[in-house]
Amino acid sequence: MTIKIKQFVLLKRPVGVPVESNFSLKTETISGDLKENELHLRGIYYSVDPYMRGRMNGAKSYVAPFALNEPISGAVIARVVESKKSGLITGDFVFGQLPWATEMVVDSSSVRKIDVQIGKASDYLGVLGMTGLTAYFGLLKIGQPISGETVVVSGAAGAVGTIVGQIAKMKGCKVIGIVGSGEKEKLLKDRFHFDGMINYKSKDDLVHLIKNACPNGVDVYFDNVGGEISDAVIQNMNFQGRIVLCGQISLYNSKEIPMGPRIQPILLTKSILMQGFIVSNFTEQFPEGLAELSKWVKEGKIEAIETIIEGFENLPKAFIDLFSGKNVGKMMVMAKDIAL
Amino acid sequence: MTIKIKQFVLLKRPVGVPVESNFSLKTETISGDLKENELHLRGIYYSVDPYMRGRMNGAKSYVAPFALNEPISGAVIARVVESKKSGLITGDFVFGQLPWATEMVVDSSSVRKIDVQIGKASDYLGVLGMTGLTAYFGLLKIGQPISGETVVVSGAAGAVGTIVGQIAKMKGCKVIGIVGSGEKEKLLKDRFHFDGMINYKSKDDLVHLIKNACPNGVDVYFDNVGGEISDAVIQNMNFQGRIVLCGQISLYNSKEIPMGPRIQPILLTKSILMQGFIVSNFTEQFPEGLAELSKWVKEGKIEAIETIIEGFENLPKAFIDLFSGKNVGKMMVMAKDIAL
Repeated sequence: MTIKIKQFVLLKRPVGVPVESNFSLKTETISGDLKENELHLRGIYYSVDPYMRGRMNGAKSYVAPFALNEPISGAVIARVVESKKSGLITGDFVFGQLPWATEMVVDSSSVRKIDVQIGKASDYLGVLGMTGLTAYFGLLKIGQPISGETVVVSGAAGAVGTIVGQIAKMKGCKVIGIVGSGEKEKLLKDRFHFDGMINYKSKDDLVHLIKNACPNGVDVYFDNVGGEISDAVIQNMNFQGRIVLCGQISLYNSKEIPMGPRIQPILLTKSILMQGFIVSNFTEQFPEGLAELSKWVKEGKIEAIETIIEGFENLPKAFIDLFSGKNVGKMMVMAKDIAL
Repeated sequence: MTIKIKQFVLLKRPVGVPVESNFSLKTETISGDLKENELHLRGIYYSVDPYMRGRMNGAKSYVAPFALNEPISGAVIARVVESKKSGLITGDFVFGQLPWATEMVVDSSSVRKIDVQIGKASDYLGVLGMTGLTAYFGLLKIGQPISGETVVVSGAAGAVGTIVGQIAKMKGCKVIGIVGSGEKEKLLKDRFHFDGMINYKSKDDLVHLIKNACPNGVDVYFDNVGGEISDAVIQNMNFQGRIVLCGQISLYNSKEIPMGPRIQPILLTKSILMQGFIVSNFTEQFPEGLAELSKWVKEGKIEAIETIIEGFENLPKAFIDLFSGKNVGKMMVMAKDIAL
């Protein structure tokens, strides 16, 4: 076996908003026979996620930073070209944390097979993958919404936000979504039946817009964006409200430590809970979450929405576009040539 | 019955740090006979608490603001002078939210009898009162410290802080206290056997001082003060750490909305929980908490420490002194004439 592959490496660490020149497309040749338990895979769908921005910084964190001149890696759906692992055959779909490469040879332990009978392959990057699980555990285990309560979601038209909103509706909550365009407002209303939408780019005072949309106050705030949007929501929180910290996309590209009003006095006087999380905190409960999500998808109670960009070479651009809100739902890149 | 009493009313709402001229001492005459279920009480110990500063502002909150020209009220230990309530006789000690008045006539439903066999009367403002319960529930139900973990307490020599530290030590934790004087550091070390003390007024970098005192990072931060001290602790928090928001005394006198570094990115990447609370959230569990605290006091496992100022007329000054850290342990004012 001798194959030519293309892969994206991190060339320079971004300062502020990432630009395409931070990445470099390299060609490489892989040769030799597969060893026992190895797989030759071809990438099909590549996930781009805001959290990956953090890994592009050099600072140590709880996820290791990407190394310079090494391939970026992320959630990828791939197909098996050749297998030396029993139980996996050519044509099977697998999921894994894999490099941004057109093809790859990996140990089979780094992927798991996905069942394209339950959902389509791309769902495993979205509603049936980390995205769906993030929405599920963040909202239900941390936010703990009760029927009749008001749930506000920021980044509401995004991958996690659209699922959070649908689950909260299912639980009998009033759901208000914060987004950055009229088009997204319309999507939330028409397709997902949100009870209210707020465009944070509106010239009106955000604190007032939220107050008007949530006359009974905010019980659960599912936060994907942070910054001034969150400041305005927090001012409208109810006593014993819950704030689920899922993302802070508005701050990921800050060049300096972002400043803002101190929130502890509000959290204190209103007995508010704020909890940061990553989905892997709930690993032991993944089977429960996936079973529920799969059921809801099958029953048509949750509809997944995707922004799929065609062409492997568009990966950096798709990633960068996350930060200007160009996506609705789950953003991913699909390889052009997906035949085996 | 005709009695002359003295009482403190709120004359002007403080702007910034309260001053004595915000308060006014008034003389009043109460006359007439006690009605059924009424009590004539004489104040013995008057609690001064940082949270009362919030009630001196005009803004609506979850505790109603004090009215201008009306008596301040707070936690008071009083003795029964005359009783029209069965089960309460002259000389009994009672606890209640009562006016800052030398004597008062109240309905018996507004007080409860205290047992001076278990602890001394003043303990019911401290370790066996709201102070002890605040430490107990905040640390154990929110902070949930595990043996071997590192617990940092700010305002560590204060009413709540001294009890939090002692309970955390009892639970097998390494306990570090943040205070504002060398004298307080000595107290924490010699009397309460804290594992480390930090003087936040030191010229050294606070982030580094905390790092040195907590080489394994901070698992639980019990926060009584807020502001820059908290910023420094939060930078040293561990993954899945817990921040108990009990007080923010450094911010209570702010004239403008206090600004600081946004904390959500840290809470997010480290999966940290931050929870504000007031002790009344745990009302149903008060019997459990009081039973435990009483047992620990009896067994000598918890020692209460008090700063008792003599003379009713010193109430405003004692309250104001809270904000410059003049107290160690529970600060209260004792009436000069406590004979019946």
